[in-house]
Amino acid sequence: MTATSPSSRAAARPVLLGQNQYGKAENRVVRIVRDGDTHHIKDLNVSVALSGDMEDVHYSGSNANVLTTDTTKNTVFAFAKEHGIESAEQFAIHLARHFVTSQETIHRARIRVEEYTWERIEASDANSKFIGADEVRHSFVRKGQEIRTSQVTYDGEQWEVVSGLKELVVMNSTNSEFWGYLKDRYTTLKEAYDRILATEVSSRWRFNWTDDEQKMPNWEKSYQQVKKHMLQAFAETYSLSLQQTLYQMGARIINNRSEIDEVRFSLPNKHHFLVDLEPFELKNDNEVYYAADRPYGLIEGTVLREGCEARIPVDMTNL
Amino acid sequence: MTATSPSSRAAARPVLLGQNQYGKAENRVVRIVRDGDTHHIKDLNVSVALSGDMEDVHYSGSNANVLTTDTTKNTVFAFAKEHGIESAEQFAIHLARHFVTSQETIHRARIRVEEYTWERIEASDANSKFIGADEVRHSFVRKGQEIRTSQVTYDGEQWEVVSGLKELVVMNSTNSEFWGYLKDRYTTLKEAYDRILATEVSSRWRFNWTDDEQKMPNWEKSYQQVKKHMLQAFAETYSLSLQQTLYQMGARIINNRSEIDEVRFSLPNKHHFLVDLEPFELKNDNEVYYAADRPYGLIEGTVLREGCEARIPVDMTNL
Amino acid sequence: MTATSPSSRAAARPVLLGQNQYGKAENRVVRIVRDGDTHHIKDLNVSVALSGDMEDVHYSGSNANVLTTDTTKNTVFAFAKEHGIESAEQFAIHLARHFVTSQETIHRARIRVEEYTWERIEASDANSKFIGADEVRHSFVRKGQEIRTSQVTYDGEQWEVVSGLKELVVMNSTNSEFWGYLKDRYTTLKEAYDRILATEVSSRWRFNWTDDEQKMPNWEKSYQQVKKHMLQAFAETYSLSLQQTLYQMGARIINNRSEIDEVRFSLPNKHHFLVDLEPFELKNDNEVYYAADRPYGLIEGTVLREGCEARIPVDMTNL
Amino acid sequence: MTATSPSSRAAARPVLLGQNQYGKAENRVVRIVRDGDTHHIKDLNVSVALSGDMEDVHYSGSNANVLTTDTTKNTVFAFAKEHGIESAEQFAIHLARHFVTSQETIHRARIRVEEYTWERIEASDANSKFIGADEVRHSFVRKGQEIRTSQVTYDGEQWEVVSGLKELVVMNSTNSEFWGYLKDRYTTLKEAYDRILATEVSSRWRFNWTDDEQKMPNWEKSYQQVKKHMLQAFAETYSLSLQQTLYQMGARIINNRSEIDEVRFSLPNKHHFLVDLEPFELKNDNEVYYAADRPYGLIEGTVLREGCEARIPVDMTNL
Repeated sequence: MTATSPSSRAAARPVLLGQNQYGKAENRVVRIVRDGDTHHIKDLNVSVALSGDMEDVHYSGSNANVLTTDTTKNTVFAFAKEHGIESAEQFAIHLARHFVTSQETIHRARIRVEEYTWERIEASDANSKFIGADEVRHSFVRKGQEIRTSQVTYDGEQWEVVSGLKELVVMNSTNSEFWGYLKDRYTTLKEAYDRILATEVSSRWRFNWTDDEQKMPNWEKSYQQVKKHMLQAFAETYSLSLQQTLYQMGARIINNRSEIDEVRFSLPNKHHFLVDLEPFELKNDNEVYYAADRPYGLIEGTVLREGCEARIPVDMTNL
Repeated sequence: MTATSPSSRAAARPVLLGQNQYGKAENRVVRIVRDGDTHHIKDLNVSVALSGDMEDVHYSGSNANVLTTDTTKNTVFAFAKEHGIESAEQFAIHLARHFVTSQETIHRARIRVEEYTWERIEASDANSKFIGADEVRHSFVRKGQEIRTSQVTYDGEQWEVVSGLKELVVMNSTNSEFWGYLKDRYTTLKEAYDRILATEVSSRWRFNWTDDEQKMPNWEKSYQQVKKHMLQAFAETYSLSLQQTLYQMGARIINNRSEIDEVRFSLPNKHHFLVDLEPFELKNDNEVYYAADRPYGLIEGTVLREGCEARIPVDMTNL
Repeated sequence: MTATSPSSRAAARPVLLGQNQYGKAENRVVRIVRDGDTHHIKDLNVSVALSGDMEDVHYSGSNANVLTTDTTKNTVFAFAKEHGIESAEQFAIHLARHFVTSQETIHRARIRVEEYTWERIEASDANSKFIGADEVRHSFVRKGQEIRTSQVTYDGEQWEVVSGLKELVVMNSTNSEFWGYLKDRYTTLKEAYDRILATEVSSRWRFNWTDDEQKMPNWEKSYQQVKKHMLQAFAETYSLSLQQTLYQMGARIINNRSEIDEVRFSLPNKHHFLVDLEPFELKNDNEVYYAADRPYGLIEGTVLREGCEARIPVDMTNL
Repeated sequence: MTATSPSSRAAARPVLLGQNQYGKAENRVVRIVRDGDTHHIKDLNVSVALSGDMEDVHYSGSNANVLTTDTTKNTVFAFAKEHGIESAEQFAIHLARHFVTSQETIHRARIRVEEYTWERIEASDANSKFIGADEVRHSFVRKGQEIRTSQVTYDGEQWEVVSGLKELVVMNSTNSEFWGYLKDRYTTLKEAYDRILATEVSSRWRFNWTDDEQKMPNWEKSYQQVKKHMLQAFAETYSLSLQQTLYQMGARIINNRSEIDEVRFSLPNKHHFLVDLEPFELKNDNEVYYAADRPYGLIEGTVLREGCEARIPVDMTNL
C-alpha cells in the first residue's frame, strides 16, 4: 500500500468520509418494441447510484476509480437495446449486476426506476373497420393513475428488490369512524361516526428474492396483484383509524403474496371536512365536504411477515 | 352623482383603473350523493372572479360595493348542497347567475372549475359474493388521466361556456414524419421519416350555447365525446407536422359535435430523441429513445367552425 | 395563386384555422462574460413563438413555410454569442427582429424570457486577503427572491415590451383592515381592524417604447426602480382592502416611471388566520397565525396612465 | 397482561407491525412579535411524528393510546404562544419534550421544521424621513434564497438535532476540471479542463448536543456560520470533481464549528453544457452554455468528525 492509499490518507485526517454514492439520476428511457404493426412501450425514469473505493476522489479529486456518471447514463440507454426492458425490476437487475461485476472499484450498485404506464387508444368505428382492430396499434395515452417504482440493490452477493407505487389517491365515502382517543389540554376534535377516509397511497414492498439461485418472481404479475390487494383491502376495511386500514392493506398483501415479506406505507390523511352549512339554514347530511391541503395527518408504518427482518427505511419517500 | 362617485374620482386622476376582477380561488368542494349503498362523487376545484362597480374599493379602499371573497367561498359550498353538482358546467352556471343577479354592484361573473375524476374500486371475489356487487359502492380510486376544466362567464345577458382538459399525455410510436422545412444559417436539424410524436394535450373548446332560451347541451356526454374524438384523431392522423395533427384534432371535434364552434390547443412537442448507440457498436432501429424535458416545441392554434368568431384567448393556459 | 394556396384551401373548408403560433419554448441559456478574473452571468429561460403564413402546415402538413422550432433554439444560443445578453429585453428584441425580418413567411415574433438573478459569494477572510477581493469573482449563489420576466412582440413595424416579475412574496404584519363590505345570506366573515396582509406578487408592466426611432429605456435600471416602488408602495399603504393596495402599487409605478404606461397585478390574498387559542385558555393578541393554502382571495387589476390604452391581457399569468 | 394486550396479539399473528409513526404534518405557523412599532416574524412549517404503544390502533383500530393528529396540530399553535419561537430548533425541542413527557403511550417524538426567511422592505426616502427609519418596521419581503430545515428527535433520554438547508443554488464559472476517470465500453465523455460547476445544495448537519445537561448551541448563529462556510468552501475549492468539493464543504464546517460532528450532502450536478456553435461559424470560448434538466449527476456523501458515528440517513432528502 502506497503513501497515498485511501486508508493511510484517512488515518491522518481529523475529518473522515462516510457513506457516499454517485451516479446519473433520472435517465428518461423509452423503449419501443415493434411486433409487426403492434407496438409496445416501456417508459422509465432510471437513476443509478454507485459506491466503492471512492476515498481518493473525495480527498484529492483523483478520478482514477470513478466510472463517470455520463458512462452510467450511456449504459442505461445501451442496455435498453442489448437486454430490452422486460420489466423495470429485471432491467435494474441487469444494470446493477453490470456495474458491480465489471468494475473493480465499484462494490455496490443501487438502481431506482419510476415507471409510467400507457394504455392503447381505442380506434374509431370507421378506422377499426378499416384496420381490423379496435385499438390503434401504435397509439397510446398515458394511464396516469399512479407512478410505479422499483429499487434494486446489489453488492456482488445479495440482491434486495423493493418495488412500490406512489400518487395513488383513494377514498371511502363511508365506513370510517374515529373516536375513543386520548384527550389532553390541547384536544378539541369531536368524535366522528361516519367520515370520509381518503389518502394518497405511497407504498413500498420488499421481495424475498435475494439470490441468483432462487426462482425470480414474475415482477409484472406481482405488481398487478399487489395493487389489487391493496385497493381491495382499503375498500373493504371498515375503518376505526387510518392505522388500522394501513395494517389491513399490508396484511392482505403479505397473506396473498408469498414473494413479499415486508410492506411499508406513507399515508397522508387527506382530510375532507364536512362544511358547516347551518349559518345558511341548510342541513349538511354528509353531503358537502371541503378537501383540505395542509396540515394533514401523516400515518406511516411497516407490516412484516412473521420472522422477517424490517429493511425498508423509515423515511422511504425518496425510495 | 356625489363628489366622491367613481366617475368623478376617475376624471381627476392621472392614473386610472382598468379591467379588474376578484373572488375566492380554488375552493375544493367534494359532493357525495348517497343513492342507498351506492355513492357518487363530484370532486371540483372552483374559482370565482367577479367584476362590477369596483372603482371605490381601488381608489379609496371603501368596501361598500364588495361582496367579500369569503362570501363567494361560502356560496360555492352552500350551492353544492342547494343545487347539487350535476356537472361542473351546470354548477358554474348556477353560481355565475347568482352573483350577477343578486348583487347590483356585480355585473359579470366568471367561474372556473377543475374536475378530478374517480372510478370505483373493484371488489375482491370474497367480498363481491358477500355484498352481491363486483364493485365496492362507496370506494373510489382517482382516475388521474387528465384534469377536466370548465369556465362559465355571465354578464347578465349572454353566457360563454368554455370547457377543456389538460395533462392528457399521448404518443404515436410511428406514422409521424418531419421534413421539407425552411433552412437558414442556423438550421442543423436532420429530416425525419419515422419519428415518435408525443404531446401533453391542453385543450379548450367553446360551446355555442349562449342564451337561456337555447336548449342546454348535455355537458357530461359532450365531454366524453370530445375526448374520444380528440384521441382518435391524434391516433389516426398520419402526421407530417404537429400542426397538421392539431388541426385534425380540432376539425374532428367541430365536425362531430355541433354544440361546439371553436377549439384551441396548446401542444408541447414532447421530444423523444433516438439515442445514438453507434459508439457502443449497437444499431438503434427506432427502439431506444431519450425523452427530453426542455426545450420543447410548443404548437398552439385555434380551429373554428366556418362563420364563427374566435373568442378563446391566445394564451389559454390559465383558462 | 394556385389551387393549393392557403386562401383557396380555406375557402373550401367548413373548419378554419384561427390564431396560431409555434416555436421552441424554455431554452435555458446561460451566458458568462469574463472580464479578466471577474465573471458576469446572465441566466435566462427563453421561449419563441412565431406566426405567419402557416395555413399549409396545418391543412396539409407541408412544412415549406416553417422555420423549425429546432432552428429557433439554435438561434437563441447563437445570438447569445453574436449579440451577448445586455438585458433580457434587449436580447429578446434582437431575436424578434431577426425572425420577422429574415423569413418572408414569419410575420410576427413573440419572445418570452424568464431571468434568474445571481449574487456573488463573499470570500472568507483568509481568501480575501490572498486574492485581494472580498468576493470570489467567479462564484455565485442564486438570489432566489423573485423571477423576472419579459415579453417582446414585433410585427415588423411596432414593438410591444411587457416586463414583469413573479413569486415575490410580501407581508405587512399590521396597517391592514377589512370592513364595511356587502352582506348577503351567505356572509359570515367578521370585520377585521388589524390583520396581516400578505401576497405573492405577480406583475407585468408595459413600456411606451414601441418604435425603433424612440430612445430605448434602460431596461436594467427600470426594473430595479419598478421593483423598489412596488415594494415601497406595498409597505407604506395603510390598507383598507387588497384592491386599494394594488392600485397604490400601480399608481406609484406610473407616477415615478415615465417609460411605463400600464401595470397589471395578480395578487393572491395569502390568508393568515389568527388561531383561536381560547380553548387552551390562551389569549392570541395578534401573535400566532395559521398560513392557509387554499382557497385564497385572488385580486387582479390593471392600472393605467390616463389617456393610454390597456393592452396587457386580463389573464396574464402565462405572460 | 390481558388477552387483548399488544404483545399477545402479536404473538398470534403471522403478520406483524414494524416501525410506525404518526402526527400532523405541515402545520404552517407564523409568529409575529411586536416590539413597539418594530415587528419580527418567524415563519415555519412544522411536522410532528410520534411513536409509542401503537399496536392496538393498528391491529384493532382502538384509539385509546392515540393522541390525535389534530391535538398535535393544536399543540404546535398553542406552543407558539406559550413558548414563542426563539429558533426552529428550540421550538421543536419544546414540542418533542412535551409529547414524550406528557403522554405515557408516546415514547418518541420527531419534529421537523422548514423555515422561510424574511427581510425588511427598505423605506422610500419620503417615508424614511417621516417615520425616522430607513426600513418599514412591519413590512417584509421573503428572502427566498434557500429553505432552512431542522429535525429534532427525542426518546425521553437523548436528543438528536439535525439542521440543514435545501434549494441553495450555487455556481462556479471556472476553476473546475474533470479528467482522469475510468473508461469502459460505454464511455464517450470528453475530458474537461475548464467547466462550469453548479449544484443545488441540499445539506443536513448533526449537532453533538444530545443531553439537557450540555450547554445548548446558539442555533441561529450556528446556522449563519454553517451557511457561510459552506458557500465559501464551494467558492474557494479548485475542483477536480464534485466529490472533492463536497468533501471540502463538509470539512470546512467540521473544522470551524465544534458543535457539529457530521454533515451530509446531496448535490445534483446541474450540468451546463458548452453549446457547439461551430455549425454557425462561431467560436464558443466558454461563453454560451445550455443549462440541462435531466439526467443529472447526483453526488451524495457524509463527512464526519474523526471518532464520531454517522447517524444521518443515506436518503436524507425527506429529512
